[in-house]
Amino acid sequence: MKNGLHFNETLYPGVQVSYECRDILYQERTEHQELVLFENPVFGKVLMLDNITQVTTGDEFIYHEMMAHVPILAHGNAEEVLIIGGGDCGMAEEALKHQGVKRLTQVEIDASVVEFSREHFSEFNAPVFEDGRFDLAIADGARFVRETDRRFDVVMIDSTDPEGPGAVLFTEEFYRGVHRCLKPGGVLVTQNGVPFLQRAELVSSIRHLSKIYKDATAYIAAIPTYFGGHMALGFASDDPNLRKVPLETLKQRFEKAGFETRYYTPEVHQAAFALPKFILDAVEEGLTTD
Amino acid sequence: MKNGLHFNETLYPGVQVSYECRDILYQERTEHQELVLFENPVFGKVLMLDNITQVTTGDEFIYHEMMAHVPILAHGNAEEVLIIGGGDCGMAEEALKHQGVKRLTQVEIDASVVEFSREHFSEFNAPVFEDGRFDLAIADGARFVRETDRRFDVVMIDSTDPEGPGAVLFTEEFYRGVHRCLKPGGVLVTQNGVPFLQRAELVSSIRHLSKIYKDATAYIAAIPTYFGGHMALGFASDDPNLRKVPLETLKQRFEKAGFETRYYTPEVHQAAFALPKFILDAVEEGLTTD
Repeated sequence: MKNGLHFNETLYPGVQVSYECRDILYQERTEHQELVLFENPVFGKVLMLDNITQVTTGDEFIYHEMMAHVPILAHGNAEEVLIIGGGDCGMAEEALKHQGVKRLTQVEIDASVVEFSREHFSEFNAPVFEDGRFDLAIADGARFVRETDRRFDVVMIDSTDPEGPGAVLFTEEFYRGVHRCLKPGGVLVTQNGVPFLQRAELVSSIRHLSKIYKDATAYIAAIPTYFGGHMALGFASDDPNLRKVPLETLKQRFEKAGFETRYYTPEVHQAAFALPKFILDAVEEGLTTD
Repeated sequence: MKNGLHFNETLYPGVQVSYECRDILYQERTEHQELVLFENPVFGKVLMLDNITQVTTGDEFIYHEMMAHVPILAHGNAEEVLIIGGGDCGMAEEALKHQGVKRLTQVEIDASVVEFSREHFSEFNAPVFEDGRFDLAIADGARFVRETDRRFDVVMIDSTDPEGPGAVLFTEEFYRGVHRCLKPGGVLVTQNGVPFLQRAELVSSIRHLSKIYKDATAYIAAIPTYFGGHMALGFASDDPNLRKVPLETLKQRFEKAGFETRYYTPEVHQAAFALPKFILDAVEEGLTTD
């Protein structure tokens, strides 16, 4: 029985990624969702919620490096960093590699996700819980950005897909809340789905962002378990220079930061803003006022 | 029965992409292989050989644009172009969009693949068969490059994976044959698999290429149905400037070429040579002499 067990991702009608399950490590059906953590021979530990892949130990580094290092190194002097969501704490781990970050605040709505991840994903998130700069708040992120008096240099939205409870993190009102708590020169990045399969999500986010921020665009990364080619990451700021920091500056900042990466390089950072035409078209559609 | 029918790609143990089949358009089990062409709601027509996805009408443009336009526009004056393999003729279609190409020679070992594709993939390859510059030879590509007296500006190796009959197209001897029939300033590009899952293939190809060509590297594209993040495309030449043609030059050449694309842009061309660190490491491992 176990020999042939597979878990299928059912995010898209018509195409599914089917993961062989070597071992079920944890399984729980709560009133809200079906959670399963299993061992796969290619990707290591795989976490699925309601049959949608959330994170794997094999390729989490791609998404987390590109979501954290691009805005922090584009900014160049980020001290106060905010993560909304990010329950697996992989984003926090990458952000905390920057010694210049004085405090990393993470606002996650579900304490149990953090507890679960601390127990099961210590391969990558263990350093977070030993870091005095890590400031975890269990709270509603949308409410937090509307109400907080604090101001941030970099805000990262590490959300699930825009369905169910995560949908609020893709609204214009939420993006306005984030804008409110950005310092001058601050930057927001967002998880924006896979444009080949989720084009409307990108158009919609860019449309919302461009009403609020002077500059809104996307950059890309290719993450194997987020099926469908490139994932788009939203990038918004009132400083239009942030998306085009010169390569030499990025190199100096990255060298000074002094840590190793497996996907990010300053060259990859710069290249990630060169969007394939069909993704560029979606961004430009979002930028045209309707 | 048909309602629940899926075809699974079995290229990698442990993870499979499962395509819903709306309609089987053609199916044949020959003595050599199992061929199936079916309609999928996301990707359109999907062709599988022995359970490995070869081409879909939905995303073929990404692979074909990046394999054809990058070397032709890097070269800048390509008149004689050679494709080895490429039976679906999607690569030929992109190459023939360049009016400067005087002759496009395609050497495909299997006439039936071309016939099949002409019948079933006319959505993208119809222009090829009406173009007087298209010169099709049904022959062994490895033998052709060893023996031909002709010389080419650009050679594209549009192979299957390096197993079975396609394996010869990944050998040092074959790459030496291609070098023999390149004009001075010529360039070779190759399909080199998905490094996240097929790292050894990339290391091996770069090792072979770097023994023969003064410059050997890879560039990347993200093609949804080639599962696993970026695909690596090998790029080899005796002119080390070809991989770093200035953006302004690429823009001028692309504008002069005068056709539309859906993935390729001059910016994407340049960015494609910025390799994620784990892919760069594989290339550098191939470049170190052993």
